[in-house]
Amino acid sequence: MLPFSERLAAAIRRCATPAMVGLDPRVDFLPESLQPGPQASPEQIAEAYATFCCAVIDVVAELVPAVKPQAAFFEEQGPAGMAALWKVIDYARKKGLLVIIDAKRGDIGSTAEAYARGYLGRRFDERADWLKPPEGDSEVLDLTGVHSAWGGDAITVNPYVGEDSLQPFVATALDRRAGVFVLVRTSNAGARLFQDLVADGKPLYRHVAEYVEYLAKSTASREAAAASSYGAVGAVVGATYPEELEQLRQVMPHAWLLVPGYGAQGGTAREVAAAFDDQGLGAIINSSRSIIFAYRLPRYHNQFGPSRWQEAIEAATGEMIAQLRAETPAGRLVA
Amino acid sequence: MLPFSERLAAAIRRCATPAMVGLDPRVDFLPESLQPGPQASPEQIAEAYATFCCAVIDVVAELVPAVKPQAAFFEEQGPAGMAALWKVIDYARKKGLLVIIDAKRGDIGSTAEAYARGYLGRRFDERADWLKPPEGDSEVLDLTGVHSAWGGDAITVNPYVGEDSLQPFVATALDRRAGVFVLVRTSNAGARLFQDLVADGKPLYRHVAEYVEYLAKSTASREAAAASSYGAVGAVVGATYPEELEQLRQVMPHAWLLVPGYGAQGGTAREVAAAFDDQGLGAIINSSRSIIFAYRLPRYHNQFGPSRWQEAIEAATGEMIAQLRAETPAGRLVA
Repeated sequence: MLPFSERLAAAIRRCATPAMVGLDPRVDFLPESLQPGPQASPEQIAEAYATFCCAVIDVVAELVPAVKPQAAFFEEQGPAGMAALWKVIDYARKKGLLVIIDAKRGDIGSTAEAYARGYLGRRFDERADWLKPPEGDSEVLDLTGVHSAWGGDAITVNPYVGEDSLQPFVATALDRRAGVFVLVRTSNAGARLFQDLVADGKPLYRHVAEYVEYLAKSTASREAAAASSYGAVGAVVGATYPEELEQLRQVMPHAWLLVPGYGAQGGTAREVAAAFDDQGLGAIINSSRSIIFAYRLPRYHNQFGPSRWQEAIEAATGEMIAQLRAETPAGRLVA
Repeated sequence: MLPFSERLAAAIRRCATPAMVGLDPRVDFLPESLQPGPQASPEQIAEAYATFCCAVIDVVAELVPAVKPQAAFFEEQGPAGMAALWKVIDYARKKGLLVIIDAKRGDIGSTAEAYARGYLGRRFDERADWLKPPEGDSEVLDLTGVHSAWGGDAITVNPYVGEDSLQPFVATALDRRAGVFVLVRTSNAGARLFQDLVADGKPLYRHVAEYVEYLAKSTASREAAAASSYGAVGAVVGATYPEELEQLRQVMPHAWLLVPGYGAQGGTAREVAAAFDDQGLGAIINSSRSIIFAYRLPRYHNQFGPSRWQEAIEAATGEMIAQLRAETPAGRLVA
């Protein structure tokens, strides 16, 4: 298996887009045919989430390189929600999508290891398959006993706990050819409370960015087969602060940028253009609500009505892809 | 139901100790009789975790006010691990323990709401019971439709994402008479990387502490029945930095302090003494490994051997309680 950064670059090139679809199911927003009803149990809601997300995946699997399930909405429904999350990850992978689990985990050393081992890498039940060197892999790893219960290709993590909370994720990601995206600058209005505090002449998020670059660079050089300059460690940088995006792209030349906040949160294609390198790589742009619940937006609602919600998803995904091609260096991905 | 801060104070007074037991199951450390074997599946490991943690609860339920399950070790085992976590929370509550879920969650507004709604408050299946005003409750809340899939009394959260990531937890905690513990100063060696950055003359963790005090104070005044000065929002402050503990106790007079790092991580009773108020309240001290895996420590191993591990847990819990009574203001809890 190739390193995460190369698998991501290959998937982006194959689809000729860095558009990623966020799987953030919310019971109130589900199409009427999937509504579990006002007195639904967590089990019934979780089942509706799995059905809905797999239907979203059916639409977008041929169009985009990756999906990003948001763990919170599944966790909200308890163990049944977590079983639904597992099904959704499994379905996405079988459809050929990369899966970036948006869990924003972070804890001290040995606990961070548990998170990393659980979320990153091929699954236990795929172990036999994983031990066979896949085509195109230049190196056979000894992966005996290595397994992941969830089977994610990458995970988002929180830097507050410090370096020994990040390093277990990085080490596990390298072992398992997976990726880690560290929160640097989040897309919410309240992000400034702590992220903007200035120490040694630089805001906190800039300090985090410099540490992420250190991790990204060192992982890029350690991944023997690396054809690109990107490492296994990337950064989450919100689309809602475009001027900072440009600066952070420069501070972290070896880090993939995961850019949330496109669409519903207000980010536009023009505003994320600075996240890319000259080849149109280096960034993956996420949209959640404006894609998966596109049928609720007036312009798609007028065209498709409430029942043809999968067609609305397809149209919204196509529109996002077109906008990114027209307004950003991602246009260069089109041969 | 009384507010969390009052329920916590009452439970600490009842047991005359602020000792809390962390439920951090690790397959390699399980007693031999519970070992699922070297080729165990996540399902088998998760089952062993549930059995082990419920056995720990059997020993400590009469001795301590609360337990703190560490979500990471359950999550590592996938959906089966999450089902085990649910069982353990359920069992602890039925045994009368408060349950502080150590999940260190944090995300932007609407996503933070999903985490908060999922983890805080009585469970869906207990809803009917919850709607009956329990004895001693001065106020009947309208809780129609309010439920939690997990049923935690409190949760740990990460502040990095900012104020609109913390406020949904605070609002939900107030609605549901639950608690929130914000990471301020973690107990790991690498905590200093970002937490010690100095902005406006104060380290980052101090800025976080001041915001936590603001939240704690405002929730203390909003909880009508509040008999103590503590609010629904507390702080996680590691036992490994005793001089900072004293300072942070002063900065956050309305915040319960959750102090991890006692025992295996090196914190002693004397070092946590500064976390308490004059009545011996205001702090809850967590020990995980040195309690639940006490049978592996030489002094308990010599006394109880490998099979009487529950007796080792009881002895280690008793020793921690005795040390806290001897060396800290918690001694004043003994009538």
